Amino acid sequence: MLETLLTINSPDMNLLDKIQPFYVMQLLNRAKALEQAGADVVHMEIGEPDFPTPPLVVNAGIEFLSKGEVKYTPAAGLSALREAIARFYAERYNVEVPVSRIFVTPGASGAVLLALAGLLERGGEVLLSDPGYPCYPNFVRLLGGEPRLVPVGVETNFQLDAATLGRHWTPQARGAVMASPSNPTGTMTDGATLREIADFIDAHGGFWLSDEIYHGLVYGEPARSALEFSEQAFVVNSFSKYFGMTGWRLGWAVVPEAFVGLAERLAQNLFISAPTHSQMAALAAFSPDNLAELERRRCEFETRRDFLLRELPGLGFGIPVRPQGAFYIYADCSRWTDDSFEFAWRLLEEAHVAVTPGKDFGLNEQQHHLRFAYTASLRHLNEGLRRIRDFLGPP
Amino acid sequence: MLETLLTINSPDMNLLDKIQPFYVMQLLNRAKALEQAGADVVHMEIGEPDFPTPPLVVNAGIEFLSKGEVKYTPAAGLSALREAIARFYAERYNVEVPVSRIFVTPGASGAVLLALAGLLERGGEVLLSDPGYPCYPNFVRLLGGEPRLVPVGVETNFQLDAATLGRHWTPQARGAVMASPSNPTGTMTDGATLREIADFIDAHGGFWLSDEIYHGLVYGEPARSALEFSEQAFVVNSFSKYFGMTGWRLGWAVVPEAFVGLAERLAQNLFISAPTHSQMAALAAFSPDNLAELERRRCEFETRRDFLLRELPGLGFGIPVRPQGAFYIYADCSRWTDDSFEFAWRLLEEAHVAVTPGKDFGLNEQQHHLRFAYTASLRHLNEGLRRIRDFLGPP
Repeated sequence: MLETLLTINSPDMNLLDKIQPFYVMQLLNRAKALEQAGADVVHMEIGEPDFPTPPLVVNAGIEFLSKGEVKYTPAAGLSALREAIARFYAERYNVEVPVSRIFVTPGASGAVLLALAGLLERGGEVLLSDPGYPCYPNFVRLLGGEPRLVPVGVETNFQLDAATLGRHWTPQARGAVMASPSNPTGTMTDGATLREIADFIDAHGGFWLSDEIYHGLVYGEPARSALEFSEQAFVVNSFSKYFGMTGWRLGWAVVPEAFVGLAERLAQNLFISAPTHSQMAALAAFSPDNLAELERRRCEFETRRDFLLRELPGLGFGIPVRPQGAFYIYADCSRWTDDSFEFAWRLLEEAHVAVTPGKDFGLNEQQHHLRFAYTASLRHLNEGLRRIRDFLGPP
Repeated sequence: MLETLLTINSPDMNLLDKIQPFYVMQLLNRAKALEQAGADVVHMEIGEPDFPTPPLVVNAGIEFLSKGEVKYTPAAGLSALREAIARFYAERYNVEVPVSRIFVTPGASGAVLLALAGLLERGGEVLLSDPGYPCYPNFVRLLGGEPRLVPVGVETNFQLDAATLGRHWTPQARGAVMASPSNPTGTMTDGATLREIADFIDAHGGFWLSDEIYHGLVYGEPARSALEFSEQAFVVNSFSKYFGMTGWRLGWAVVPEAFVGLAERLAQNLFISAPTHSQMAALAAFSPDNLAELERRRCEFETRRDFLLRELPGLGFGIPVRPQGAFYIYADCSRWTDDSFEFAWRLLEEAHVAVTPGKDFGLNEQQHHLRFAYTASLRHLNEGLRRIRDFLGPP
């Protein structure tokens, strides 16, 4: 019955075809099977920090739970947390963001949903970088829009810029989503480019959604926020990556003033509120002692990045642009294959190293790329590279 | 700019008009202002249990946090929790639900999103009871469908039944959403009616989404699950109400077998996963000791319901159908007003009693109804009724 329903209503391509799975999950399942059979697998596929949530945040969560009252919060989040986020923008970016424009959400996923649900009511095209985060095209489709994947490469640091937007903007375009630092490439968009994007969006009408969930995890110049360049930008951020709070499912959106009323209604309807214990714990995330701990972790990530940047090219991988943030390296494996998915499978089966195939990030040259995540200790990364070296043979 | 965008793209009725706010929030804000000015307000508007989360659940949450690892779980949820939910269906309803069909979600809100996102891709009408839970029409609209509000009244226990569905089913109909016990009426659908609904849906094609978030909070016959009557039904449930875990934001969906693959992809994209600490805490929710505590709370709710059922009619309110579950009484105030929203305002301003106006639950006779929530102690309810009596004058 249900199968009939899905087929009847989607004659060309049903939703199951349109919403791609995460291909890496297949590899992950295989990795688990290998591990259960006694194999030791080096994980370089996981988009989650290996560090536990910082103790100050965990303790704040425990302290709150000990009081036993875990009620709904206002839909936009606890005032104290929204104020802490506003102070964070003032301190880190020197930008004044009114608290009213900040919405605390269930993860950055909730923030993306909040923004796109309000923006895509009547459909329209949304420009997305390819390669890019795989959930974006799916969010756009589910909310009635049409993702327009724009190939990006070395020339633009694997990012959308104003000129690229100009070449792909159509009368149907409603807006663009960008992420800096990017998943999977770790590359960033500089201030000058962000300003040009702000001007482009302003001139063409439309929305600009800036995904800043890897801010803080950067290894050179600090990341610039879209909010420094536009009061009309939608910004999505998260406590998951930099703050190390993945399982707590907490993020936020900053929306333009004109969107506040709608965002309030959408949040009430879509979420009721973000997890209360997570919000209470996150209040401790901005304390100086916690930020110091996060800085130590950032340094550790930087060391790992530098290690991979040094070693991977020696094995024959291409890394045309130096990644500046996040915890990913998007490496070219075309020297060995035109099917990076199959290559990743063999790497797992034969060398017991798990990486994410390019296929998970779009269509553009995906067959020639693998994403290495450095969410594992240096010792593990070293062992992973040793195995890959053996697997590949002499360069 | 953004304002222009919203207007340009929605010439007839923009999203801000289509997504209604919760009107009770206006009352709640006014109540807070009164309280800040020193007034004592009796709250009978809140859709959240006044009991704190049970200690066994809180302690399980604390114990988990003490270990400090709060990572993502699989998109469908922790296996142990899905298994516990499956056992719950076996024990409470004598229904075997394969674990694979159970998806743990961020609140019931997440479960509704998961189901409707997969079902409404191509639009179509969704039949909803009026009065009913206000988020449903909004979810349907946001996901590209068209809510079709079906007036229900005393004749059908304020519920949709097969005959009512038959009268309102059109070629555009894609499915129906029902809630038993209902918010705002507390009324339930019996087994015979559920069977007829299952047959109707089966014969007409379409989906059946059964909202069972108030199961457990029932004061006579146990609530029957749609899963007892159909393997094709979508069921939404929650740890918020019966289990007393509102702020933890945890719920679940049970989907038909044919929907499992799509639900997995949707969960990965829409949520990544439900809050991990909430899932770990919820594992303690099914323990015999915790269920015994929940039973004590259920009895307390029943006492409160019986108190209001005895007292409200004496004041002149109409309660044509005895509510069997949830913690709400939907009372007719037409003896005094044709504008229950204005009436609720006056009740707040003059008597300092907060209730929810019918306007929050649809269009059908909303002007003549108020929702009383008995999520306050008997002492408070008693004080509330005393004030209402003074406000109304002699009957």
